[in-house]
Amino acid sequence: MILTVTPNAALDLTYRVPVLRPGGSHRVSAVSARAGGKGVNVSRVLHTLGHDTLATGLVGGDTGAAIRADLAAAGIPEALVTVEAESRRTVTVVSDHEATVLNEPGPEVSSAQWSRFVAAFAALVERARVVVLAGSLPPGAPVEAYARLIGAARVPTILDTSGPALSAALPAGPDLVKPNAAELAAATGLPAGTPGEVTAAARRLLAGGARAVVVSLGEDGLLAVTESGTWHARVPPVSGNPTGAGDATVAALAIALARGRAPVRPGGWGAVLGGAAALGAAAVAAPLAGDVDLETYRRLVPVAEVETGRAHPDS
Amino acid sequence: MILTVTPNAALDLTYRVPVLRPGGSHRVSAVSARAGGKGVNVSRVLHTLGHDTLATGLVGGDTGAAIRADLAAAGIPEALVTVEAESRRTVTVVSDHEATVLNEPGPEVSSAQWSRFVAAFAALVERARVVVLAGSLPPGAPVEAYARLIGAARVPTILDTSGPALSAALPAGPDLVKPNAAELAAATGLPAGTPGEVTAAARRLLAGGARAVVVSLGEDGLLAVTESGTWHARVPPVSGNPTGAGDATVAALAIALARGRAPVRPGGWGAVLGGAAALGAAAVAAPLAGDVDLETYRRLVPVAEVETGRAHPDS
Repeated sequence: MILTVTPNAALDLTYRVPVLRPGGSHRVSAVSARAGGKGVNVSRVLHTLGHDTLATGLVGGDTGAAIRADLAAAGIPEALVTVEAESRRTVTVVSDHEATVLNEPGPEVSSAQWSRFVAAFAALVERARVVVLAGSLPPGAPVEAYARLIGAARVPTILDTSGPALSAALPAGPDLVKPNAAELAAATGLPAGTPGEVTAAARRLLAGGARAVVVSLGEDGLLAVTESGTWHARVPPVSGNPTGAGDATVAALAIALARGRAPVRPGGWGAVLGGAAALGAAAVAAPLAGDVDLETYRRLVPVAEVETGRAHPDS
Repeated sequence: MILTVTPNAALDLTYRVPVLRPGGSHRVSAVSARAGGKGVNVSRVLHTLGHDTLATGLVGGDTGAAIRADLAAAGIPEALVTVEAESRRTVTVVSDHEATVLNEPGPEVSSAQWSRFVAAFAALVERARVVVLAGSLPPGAPVEAYARLIGAARVPTILDTSGPALSAALPAGPDLVKPNAAELAAATGLPAGTPGEVTAAARRLLAGGARAVVVSLGEDGLLAVTESGTWHARVPPVSGNPTGAGDATVAALAIALARGRAPVRPGGWGAVLGGAAALGAAAVAAPLAGDVDLETYRRLVPVAEVETGRAHPDS
């Protein structure tokens, strides 16, 4: 079972409008409301692919109840822990031209509530083969929250977060971190424009404690950086909604880790990274975060190209 | 007791951002989530002013539960009827420059659910002195929904809605309708720019069955049109958020009706309309719909000016 942790789970609202006009009043034509947050999205992708997963994290209030109800309706197993304050919503306004995102900050979590969650996590992780820790921390959670969870996990961990939450977690030694280029630049203070810059900045995260870094580069694919080399995977571009592509990529990497492949067996990176890039692109082809278009995935897996930065026998 | 009916009650979310950038990702700094919809806002204003009120209408799902919880927290009595589908949300994004509104359509209501609500309404209206019917109808409710409720009420009724829901309700003879200029123009197909045009269009609603029409004209105040004359009330302009000003105006008119004043006693229009304009402006001075700034109200009541269009002994 792959355990996903979403400390700041959300109810994701998606609104469709022809044009978003600041100052205007809009009648929303299509509304989707469903459970979200990065870890929840990873569980949704894993569930779609038929993999055993369990979603945990923190939820509260009527919004938390709506998150739970949606996971139950989708058949995604959850062991979310309840807090008093109201879970956050995110609103994505999709027009013909662009997607506009509004993120609420999330519930204020007390230290007693956080400790209770850590205890629940310690019990759940006993049954996990891989743990995915993803998304922002709710207000009130300690900045070293992810470090503490990584320390309590005796199985491989993937961390997908940003800012201080990422920096503070590195010393705990996550097996894999997956920033995008902007998050990588923010976490390291280094430029992350060219592949060379991305590689140099990723090495800074390795030096900080991460065992492997996979940087998502949008249409430029994925760049993996470990002590033993670099791998750059690309698939043909796909048009659609890039929200959730990173979560699909993390799901693919979690499956590989659960199977004992990269980075546990470093030589497996080539195939793993190509598949992860294909699954990320398959998420772009699906309109909502957490969904993947399986036909796009099947079409792209065989055409993924992986370029190895340093010679390696079997990658 | 003043009974308010909100067939399409909402959870009103208000987000604060420095600037709304279409295509951008925004971290929302202040979040307010509370019960809304025009009738609910009217009840909130009445409650603030110390008047006995009861809010009814339709709610459903976790969003409906959140609406109920907020009314309970505010101490506003409610007798909302539950439907299966999820209540709607509205999102208002307030920036330094403007307010941008996104309205969900609302729950699909079956004819059996609507009939059940009509039966509940018939019981509640026995205890009411005035009924306020306000806002849009949820999908699935019959277009003549308001006509049926007006027919079932044996007490004075105020109707604040627009489009086909307004047109279809006029034959039932609402005691007062309160469109704004745009709604008046849409309902009649007539221009409603100048006071003369507004008066002519309002007379069309009188001919359709309304006993009195009060048109809200924003900073130009309120224009009342009845068979016996016209009255135009103005107060000094107030800066702020105009959302909810119409609901405060309706609350003032409902109090007057409950006291047996205009339009029951036609000569009372002068004082009633000035107070209604002052309360509408007091809502502009308060940031959220349903709130009124009582100091602004007290300041404006004595300076409201009412101009009578046709000579009338005591107005």
